[in-house]
Amino acid sequence: LNETADVGIVGAGQLARMMLQAAIPLGLRVQVLAASPSDGGAIVASNVVIGSPDDPEALRAIAQSCRALTFDHELVSVPVLQQLEAEGYCIRPASSVMAVSQDKRLQRDLFSSCGLPVPRYAIVQEIEEAERFADETEYPVAVKAARGGYDGRGIWKVETENQLKDLTGSLLAREITPVIEPWVRLEREVAILIARRPGGETVVYPLVETVQERGMLKELVAPAEVPESLHETAAWIAIEVASALEVVGLLAVEFFVVDGELWINEIATRPHNSGHYTIEGTVTSQFEQHLRAVLDLPLGATGLTAPHVVTVNVVGSETQQDSDQSLRDALTVPGAHVHLYGKSWRPGRKLGHVTVAGDDLELVRSRARAAAAYLAGG
Amino acid sequence: LNETADVGIVGAGQLARMMLQAAIPLGLRVQVLAASPSDGGAIVASNVVIGSPDDPEALRAIAQSCRALTFDHELVSVPVLQQLEAEGYCIRPASSVMAVSQDKRLQRDLFSSCGLPVPRYAIVQEIEEAERFADETEYPVAVKAARGGYDGRGIWKVETENQLKDLTGSLLAREITPVIEPWVRLEREVAILIARRPGGETVVYPLVETVQERGMLKELVAPAEVPESLHETAAWIAIEVASALEVVGLLAVEFFVVDGELWINEIATRPHNSGHYTIEGTVTSQFEQHLRAVLDLPLGATGLTAPHVVTVNVVGSETQQDSDQSLRDALTVPGAHVHLYGKSWRPGRKLGHVTVAGDDLELVRSRARAAAAYLAGG
Repeated sequence: LNETADVGIVGAGQLARMMLQAAIPLGLRVQVLAASPSDGGAIVASNVVIGSPDDPEALRAIAQSCRALTFDHELVSVPVLQQLEAEGYCIRPASSVMAVSQDKRLQRDLFSSCGLPVPRYAIVQEIEEAERFADETEYPVAVKAARGGYDGRGIWKVETENQLKDLTGSLLAREITPVIEPWVRLEREVAILIARRPGGETVVYPLVETVQERGMLKELVAPAEVPESLHETAAWIAIEVASALEVVGLLAVEFFVVDGELWINEIATRPHNSGHYTIEGTVTSQFEQHLRAVLDLPLGATGLTAPHVVTVNVVGSETQQDSDQSLRDALTVPGAHVHLYGKSWRPGRKLGHVTVAGDDLELVRSRARAAAAYLAGG
Repeated sequence: LNETADVGIVGAGQLARMMLQAAIPLGLRVQVLAASPSDGGAIVASNVVIGSPDDPEALRAIAQSCRALTFDHELVSVPVLQQLEAEGYCIRPASSVMAVSQDKRLQRDLFSSCGLPVPRYAIVQEIEEAERFADETEYPVAVKAARGGYDGRGIWKVETENQLKDLTGSLLAREITPVIEPWVRLEREVAILIARRPGGETVVYPLVETVQERGMLKELVAPAEVPESLHETAAWIAIEVASALEVVGLLAVEFFVVDGELWINEIATRPHNSGHYTIEGTVTSQFEQHLRAVLDLPLGATGLTAPHVVTVNVVGSETQQDSDQSLRDALTVPGAHVHLYGKSWRPGRKLGHVTVAGDDLELVRSRARAAAAYLAGG
């Protein structure tokens, strides 16, 4: 081994960027594998290797130079990770976990086998199976690509049998397995983060409400204003999933609230958009926590730092702004913690987020929205 | 101009390191001028130039590549900075401010001319002046080198006339101007931070108590538990000093409390050890605030995030520790925010600090001390 860093990160997006920020105070050395030197994580890193996450040699090289290898995103070949594990490298979370995080079908099967609440679903091998499912549950239904979807991509609301035939036929023809579910009439969405060390120690964060817009997370409210029983159930489910998966690092579990009950929607096995509020809003940020977990260091406290914390995503508006002026305007908002991801503007692109913490939820929310609106422009 | 960064920092110690951390979320590009690539700030920077702060060409080069040049330390030639200002570069704080921050004699003269409370003092040109001062005020007296002292170096407690003659004679022979003062029987020490933008806008932080040991800051308690009138007086003095100096960026004012009154001890015109608690303990950290001020961006809120915040410095103990195990132990302490400066161990060297925030001062303090003790070892 030729270790030059404590942690290697595959991918150099905003999650890597925020992990780099969290690594500084802990004195941890981080190397990132960036697809491009202009990636948001690469431009703030002191130790960057340019390479593709699809290149087995690039992955082997970064695994060789680090005590533990972790990820900014899921888009990494599981067989390559398995090979690296067989060679003795420390991959966290493990290839078996990455396989599940990449595949909604494996997620559904895992949750079902653990007896956890998931919406009724079917894995579609033939168009007829989808039709039968939809006939039984009634339209509309949700059809999801088992792999590759995110931020609202790879998920469709299907209203009619003809639409269903066309969509599932087209997915199957492209060798993408559709997962079909009833279109859930949800009251709200909530999410919870948990961190787990290799030995099984876990810490659970507060349950938060997530507000989506066009399939992309728009706003987070911590803690979620739902009955205490849902907080307890969510924490219990998070522990069950983390233990069943034997995840190492952060796990985010996203839920639908339907008729006052929690249904698991999906999971991510890394720091997650639903946990950005933790940077200022909890004692230990999800990014520091992830580094601590993957290095098998003691985990940190997860309590809120204020009664209410709101995070609003900054999504590029239709018209480009003067970014200097946008920042200047956003910084006039009292208590606004601005986080920019080092990305150039594009309509609909996640450019950053703003967090505000305080005693008065309405004030906190309006300030976070105001600062995010300045940064998004438009 | 060939700007490659928003802010240039002369020096790459822990202050630069923590400024780099604060720059990431704001999307600010930072270049550091490091004496060595292994400096604590250099090892986490994506844009480092190796060079001496004494080299005018190195200073010109970094001034050229940045919108504003600022400092990790005061040890920079004022005439060189004046020359760069004459060439049109943006130096913040200005050379005139750097001159005062380097020289305790200029500081004393400034405070006196503003009518601010300083201990009685004399600038010593001849040994006899020191003797006369000591006879009038009685021994012991404090003798300070006007320039170059820090962390307890450059300050002496003098008990007898013979000691005084020897010391002042030796300083004058080395062309160091001694400043003589009564040895203050202080009750405690307190400090306050203020940030000022070029146009004169200021924000003031809470008054904190600073506990020194062997002339080095050991512990910070925020807010200081002193009468409200002292908080008000300290804020007023900070505004007076910042305005008189026309400082841009952070200013720290350190005070003695003597017979219930504030006396100015000294100032620093940059982020300061007495403000490390602000990273988690106030809404806007001093490092973010300094960057905002030197770039003339709106300043941030300075309120405390918890009723009590304690920061304890980590100072290398006499025996070297296993740093992995020290970190592991420190992270077991609930709520401990560990900050390491990327420095190798040496007895008496400042290696980092720990901050804990919470409702119960005694609990907060004991936790911060426990985590710092693990990191310091010994």
